[in-house]
Amino acid sequence: MPTKRKGKQTVKIDSPISIISTASIVGPKEGQGPLGIYYDMVIEDEMWGEKSWEKAESKLMKETLSKIINKSGKALDEINYILAGDLLNQCTASNFALREAGISFFGLYGACSTMAESASLGAMLINGGFADNVVCITSSHFCSAEKQFRFPLELGSQRPPTAQWTVIGSGGVMLSNQGIGPYITYVTTGKIVDLGVKDSNNMGAAMAPAAADTIVTHFKDSGLSPSDYDLIITGDLGSFGKELCEELVSKQGYDIKSNYADCGMMVYDSQKQDTHSGGSGCGCSAVTLAGYLYQEMKKGKYNNILFVGTGALLSSTSAQQGESIPGIAHAISIQNKFE
Amino acid sequence: MPTKRKGKQTVKIDSPISIISTASIVGPKEGQGPLGIYYDMVIEDEMWGEKSWEKAESKLMKETLSKIINKSGKALDEINYILAGDLLNQCTASNFALREAGISFFGLYGACSTMAESASLGAMLINGGFADNVVCITSSHFCSAEKQFRFPLELGSQRPPTAQWTVIGSGGVMLSNQGIGPYITYVTTGKIVDLGVKDSNNMGAAMAPAAADTIVTHFKDSGLSPSDYDLIITGDLGSFGKELCEELVSKQGYDIKSNYADCGMMVYDSQKQDTHSGGSGCGCSAVTLAGYLYQEMKKGKYNNILFVGTGALLSSTSAQQGESIPGIAHAISIQNKFE
Repeated sequence: MPTKRKGKQTVKIDSPISIISTASIVGPKEGQGPLGIYYDMVIEDEMWGEKSWEKAESKLMKETLSKIINKSGKALDEINYILAGDLLNQCTASNFALREAGISFFGLYGACSTMAESASLGAMLINGGFADNVVCITSSHFCSAEKQFRFPLELGSQRPPTAQWTVIGSGGVMLSNQGIGPYITYVTTGKIVDLGVKDSNNMGAAMAPAAADTIVTHFKDSGLSPSDYDLIITGDLGSFGKELCEELVSKQGYDIKSNYADCGMMVYDSQKQDTHSGGSGCGCSAVTLAGYLYQEMKKGKYNNILFVGTGALLSSTSAQQGESIPGIAHAISIQNKFE
Repeated sequence: MPTKRKGKQTVKIDSPISIISTASIVGPKEGQGPLGIYYDMVIEDEMWGEKSWEKAESKLMKETLSKIINKSGKALDEINYILAGDLLNQCTASNFALREAGISFFGLYGACSTMAESASLGAMLINGGFADNVVCITSSHFCSAEKQFRFPLELGSQRPPTAQWTVIGSGGVMLSNQGIGPYITYVTTGKIVDLGVKDSNNMGAAMAPAAADTIVTHFKDSGLSPSDYDLIITGDLGSFGKELCEELVSKQGYDIKSNYADCGMMVYDSQKQDTHSGGSGCGCSAVTLAGYLYQEMKKGKYNNILFVGTGALLSSTSAQQGESIPGIAHAISIQNKFE
């Protein structure tokens, strides 16, 4: 067994791989949310001067990429790979955002787990000696996602309490073999989990079993326990999904109640902003990582985070064909100290 | 610079990473094609007992995965990762095919470059010490692809000469740090190239510039030349795209005419099978690699192949919004001798 492997689904990143820069650009609603001060930029409306929501989403990622690179101080030719994906059919938000970058590109599809997926692969590419600097980035857009996955926005469909609100935003990080942390130290890669949930207005419930599975597997594989983390944070389970995840993890003998949060529940004030169960979309965990989490780690509020991206692997076609919703979750440990 | 890097976009895989097993299952038309004898299985009709084309495509991949694993002699728990993707919206062919596998999963979207993309990342994950065995797999299905990207099949739309025919098939490989070759020795990861082609009935032209860019970059980065390969083979440029690629590579000073082929032109007899410019789809290069190329390398007909997966990164939404078609190409060197 290669020495970097720990247990069934986890690897130890055994050289210091730093997050050297992050950036996030969000929509107006996100800017007004509780984490508003942490974003690099808030756009004034969801079109941002473009002719379609899809083009606006691409622009979000393109400009976020530009900020990540500028803040890193790295030249374009020092960046070896971009790893990116999004929710749009054929990941066109990413494809069009990155077409002028001139950097080797690996396209990913992990639904809302994409931020964690890209950072997992990015850290391994650097730790494996294949790269010095890698950008990991993703995006989502409420309007392009609603249009594609649910109903025309113009219908004004009523939303059940379990529904979540897709974040308008792009967030990403640059990983590097230079830098002073925070470091990505463990990568636990999820397997697909499908317990038969079919309600696409209750994605939290569909993703929670995958999240719980990855969290428990991470502890078993690494030998770490919940108390080794200041914060265990899932991507976008929302209030219903978070409760379910907590319960499923607890059934396996791990108590995470005291230090467990969910990006989907932090990104909006769901009471005031009418977002029901919380935020969702690839952008949800990405802007929270790039904004709030990164900055609070830098300040020392958090020193050890288990960041768990969560994705619902359905399409509107699979839903129409009566299929259940497979979920997946990828976890990375982010620590201020490399040991 | 990490020592594994060679030039701008290439890495040298510096430990012997073998392809230890491959499998391919194809549709009836593919089974009747010139490479028919190389596939593991030919299904009788495009539904394969399922209720939808999408479900049939998932079944193709699920059964292909099963064959790859059986032929490898590896136990399920020896496989550390599956890397997969496909053309369906949100990559549902892969998500549903792999949901019962219980193996860490990285979802990819590289359009028809997915076979090369997955093998690139798979080889790096093993070479980097993160895995012993990795499965890289993809699929496509003429009916699900036509329905999603073009017109309802029932319309019987006329196809221009530049149109290609999406392969019904799934193909994949298992990579391992044990085994006796063929070995993946170089990985050249493409950047997105978009020269403004907008005709989604001429994907070959859209992808050819990316293919040429990656091929030329591979030679520059690695110091190898066209004569170091028995065969340079692109994924699915078809006859129009292949000609264009050859010309673009030649303009950069590399003559590949004598040893250059395209999977899209080999998978069908386009005269007899009325497939116009040739085959396409993620399955096209995947079943050709898993079938013909792998078996002919094993027999020694080929010893050094440059396998170049080619993808057109559009969606029907981006096409409707007047966007051009970004292309990408990923190359891997496959060699019988590890040096």
